[in-house]
Amino acid sequence: MNTTSPATGFSTLQEKVRKLVEHRWFRLPIIVVIILNAITLGLDTSPSIVAQYGGALGFFDKLVLAIFLIEIPLRIFAYRSSFFRDPWSIFDLVIVIISIMPHSGVLSILRILRILRLLRLITLVPSLKIVVEGLLSALPGMGAVSALLGLFLYIGSVIVTKLFGEAAPAQFGDIGISIFSLLQVTTLDGWPDMARAAMKTAPYAWIFFVFFIILTTFTVLNLFVGVMVSAMEERVAEEKALKEAKKPASEGPVTVGDIGQVLTAITSLQTQVQELKAQIKRP
Amino acid sequence: MNTTSPATGFSTLQEKVRKLVEHRWFRLPIIVVIILNAITLGLDTSPSIVAQYGGALGFFDKLVLAIFLIEIPLRIFAYRSSFFRDPWSIFDLVIVIISIMPHSGVLSILRILRILRLLRLITLVPSLKIVVEGLLSALPGMGAVSALLGLFLYIGSVIVTKLFGEAAPAQFGDIGISIFSLLQVTTLDGWPDMARAAMKTAPYAWIFFVFFIILTTFTVLNLFVGVMVSAMEERVAEEKALKEAKKPASEGPVTVGDIGQVLTAITSLQTQVQELKAQIKRP
Amino acid sequence: MNTTSPATGFSTLQEKVRKLVEHRWFRLPIIVVIILNAITLGLDTSPSIVAQYGGALGFFDKLVLAIFLIEIPLRIFAYRSSFFRDPWSIFDLVIVIISIMPHSGVLSILRILRILRLLRLITLVPSLKIVVEGLLSALPGMGAVSALLGLFLYIGSVIVTKLFGEAAPAQFGDIGISIFSLLQVTTLDGWPDMARAAMKTAPYAWIFFVFFIILTTFTVLNLFVGVMVSAMEERVAEEKALKEAKKPASEGPVTVGDIGQVLTAITSLQTQVQELKAQIKRP
Amino acid sequence: MNTTSPATGFSTLQEKVRKLVEHRWFRLPIIVVIILNAITLGLDTSPSIVAQYGGALGFFDKLVLAIFLIEIPLRIFAYRSSFFRDPWSIFDLVIVIISIMPHSGVLSILRILRILRLLRLITLVPSLKIVVEGLLSALPGMGAVSALLGLFLYIGSVIVTKLFGEAAPAQFGDIGISIFSLLQVTTLDGWPDMARAAMKTAPYAWIFFVFFIILTTFTVLNLFVGVMVSAMEERVAEEKALKEAKKPASEGPVTVGDIGQVLTAITSLQTQVQELKAQIKRP
Repeated sequence: MNTTSPATGFSTLQEKVRKLVEHRWFRLPIIVVIILNAITLGLDTSPSIVAQYGGALGFFDKLVLAIFLIEIPLRIFAYRSSFFRDPWSIFDLVIVIISIMPHSGVLSILRILRILRLLRLITLVPSLKIVVEGLLSALPGMGAVSALLGLFLYIGSVIVTKLFGEAAPAQFGDIGISIFSLLQVTTLDGWPDMARAAMKTAPYAWIFFVFFIILTTFTVLNLFVGVMVSAMEERVAEEKALKEAKKPASEGPVTVGDIGQVLTAITSLQTQVQELKAQIKRP
Repeated sequence: MNTTSPATGFSTLQEKVRKLVEHRWFRLPIIVVIILNAITLGLDTSPSIVAQYGGALGFFDKLVLAIFLIEIPLRIFAYRSSFFRDPWSIFDLVIVIISIMPHSGVLSILRILRILRLLRLITLVPSLKIVVEGLLSALPGMGAVSALLGLFLYIGSVIVTKLFGEAAPAQFGDIGISIFSLLQVTTLDGWPDMARAAMKTAPYAWIFFVFFIILTTFTVLNLFVGVMVSAMEERVAEEKALKEAKKPASEGPVTVGDIGQVLTAITSLQTQVQELKAQIKRP
Repeated sequence: MNTTSPATGFSTLQEKVRKLVEHRWFRLPIIVVIILNAITLGLDTSPSIVAQYGGALGFFDKLVLAIFLIEIPLRIFAYRSSFFRDPWSIFDLVIVIISIMPHSGVLSILRILRILRLLRLITLVPSLKIVVEGLLSALPGMGAVSALLGLFLYIGSVIVTKLFGEAAPAQFGDIGISIFSLLQVTTLDGWPDMARAAMKTAPYAWIFFVFFIILTTFTVLNLFVGVMVSAMEERVAEEKALKEAKKPASEGPVTVGDIGQVLTAITSLQTQVQELKAQIKRP
Repeated sequence: MNTTSPATGFSTLQEKVRKLVEHRWFRLPIIVVIILNAITLGLDTSPSIVAQYGGALGFFDKLVLAIFLIEIPLRIFAYRSSFFRDPWSIFDLVIVIISIMPHSGVLSILRILRILRLLRLITLVPSLKIVVEGLLSALPGMGAVSALLGLFLYIGSVIVTKLFGEAAPAQFGDIGISIFSLLQVTTLDGWPDMARAAMKTAPYAWIFFVFFIILTTFTVLNLFVGVMVSAMEERVAEEKALKEAKKPASEGPVTVGDIGQVLTAITSLQTQVQELKAQIKRP
């Protein structure tokens, strides 16, 4: 059975469903439902409100889930296998599956993850989708620099644990605490307190910290520059493509090929004149 | 009645008033008055100065208001309906209206807002106006990224309230406090203290904070990159326009159209030479 | 009397002095002297070292001053009035004048300002001079944005003094303290403590602080973007100029003017062929 | 003896070794060994783990060193003197030499530096190598600005030690502490506490700090802009080179030289037509 059958001349049920789920009057109410659900999940964090209106909040939550359990199967029916090839659809599906999983005992964290439903807004609002896709497209270029930053952080943590671990156990007691402390130094928040704690026993500890700050700040800066440069290049490329598409053929830049055409024309003209001269000479 | 009547040959009262309000000797004293008022409003914050010179400060404040109450109606008379179409004029009008509203009881905040008069300098000093218009022009491009940042902040706040609310009520007690705390984490100020408060009961809380910092810093960075890229594009576009306007016609870049002209000339030349050959052959 | 007299055939005393002060073996020792003086002025901050070697430090300081009192008059003799037209020379002169002024009583601050002699390195090391000139060239473009930032800071200070002055006198007690506190908020350092102090009596104070942070951060960002854009433009312009200067005439981009030359040549050719045709027809 | 001898027709032992050390199945296990060593060195920081598994960790460490002591000589044999001309190879060699040096007494720091072996990943993973080379290439351009920043820091430190040293010995007691404190001010972390300590005796100390922050922030910003601009230029230049290499000769931009060719052709045509005219006239 074919997914689309324009040849038959009338729309099948699948096509009707597809038109339905793509209609803005289908998407808009779901956006409203998600925003309302965000508010109820926010209210759900207050014990006093839960005590008073817990029942209503729970009912609304079940209602939202029911709406999702109608919407998602409809979209699967409409798109068939294409649904599972679209990462955004998979994202929606996973969020709904998290909601219907049992959440008691060790899985009580799943109950908290209901708030991730709010992320479905990204799939539903095109401008948010564009921004997120832009952010994701910058990730591959960040891989090597992030790995380098991780390397510096790990090396630094081993060094500070060995050197200052005994003198300042609260900051550099074991490698886990040291990584956290050096992350703090990397964000430049309260780094002098860290350095001062180490300087109690090792007076020259500040040399390590100043060097570490310069190294990581410089690497992070490079990460930012990379993201910025790629963002700008993308934007410039987009505009160029737009400009190329808009301008008529007679306004394109002149290439050596065009000049070649002119030269060919002149050369043929020279041949003609040469022939003319020969013609005149002969008689 | 027409707004401008150049045909009548003599300037009407309205035109005279317009010339007056546009004159620099009209605008300059108002700038001076606003700056003096800024100083008196600054002095007004000191109880001891108010006790001694309160009367003089109050008198000067009334004088400034009187000047505004002459200036604004003059400008409305000069520009008629155009006054109400210029957002900067509306801005001036609103600030003056705030000043003449009664400010007692619940409206005592309006008395404090008198300092907003200082913002009138933006309308009066062209270079400030250009900067503010530049800042405002960057706003539309920031909408989607700001919404995304708000989304992350709200989702994060619900999660930390649920997970760490009981362990650290001072930081994550209710959703309002959590939003404020995560805003603080976003600005990287004192985020380790936040994380440590949560880690007292949930030792792996640092994973959430590190992830949250990376996500929001990256999003904020994207916001900045967007503003920067658009600012640069604008500047580049301005310069291009300036350059285009300055250069004479004979210095423009060569287009395929220009080469087409050359080819046409050569082709007509070929035709002429062909005709010449035919002429010579015939006799 | 003329400043330079090449016609006389032999160099005057003034020219000899100029050659001397421009020689690298004149400039290099002065750089060394300034660096040594920087070290002695650093040692001079330690009371124990002053107690032991105070005499030697004082003697070296007088020696440095003596060297300057020979160098500067020599340069004035060499350049005459041009010396006083060069801002960097004036800068050197002012620093030396500060050193020879009496520094006792209220003028004891001048004794501390001797360390500013170190800034003379900027005049003497060309690469430092270029960087400082680059920094100074960015200043004019920052005027309007800085004024706007000052405006926001002053308006914010008057508002917080009035609103939170009584509740948090340590942070917002008078307008001076408030300006300092809001400067701190602008640098994002410890802003939550500021906001919390105000929120003790005004629970909605956080709205003001979040709004103020967004406004000032955005304005500061704009300041940075401006500096960055102008730095990039300058660099791009420099490179373009360099490229233009390097490339031979036959490699310049083709302008409509060049094509016009071609068209003129073809037109004159057409005229010639036309004349040829007329010539042939006649007989 | 020659390094490579393609003329002999069969590969020498040196060539075989070179093929071996360049093979990915030679490099990959070494990467794995380094990562495993990084983990064991991390575990080595925990006294309880050392007490239990100290022997195994020590054995693995010796094993890693043995692997390096086979790998490095093999590479020296394969590349001969070229090995010592490649800075990355020297880097590898130094790290291995540090590992085999005796580390007891004052040299116990060398035992900690074993973690630097992890940096060998940079040599082995090409994408990391590219990033580090990019970072290193930005260094020369930073020299002058860094020197200027150092100058401001030193001058500032001498001034604050003299002015506020007695009032706030914990922050500005001697020039070493002052440099550390002003470094902290430069990173904007806790600068208001610094300023407040000084303001206890010198109420106008905030003027110095605000001025110092503006000066250093502005200089640091310039450092960042420089790095960014050079990174962008590099990227743009790379792309241009790539584009030039890809496009066929007939699509290059037209230069004045090309047009010159056209003009020469037309001029020769004119000469021919002139000759033709003369030919016809004569008879």
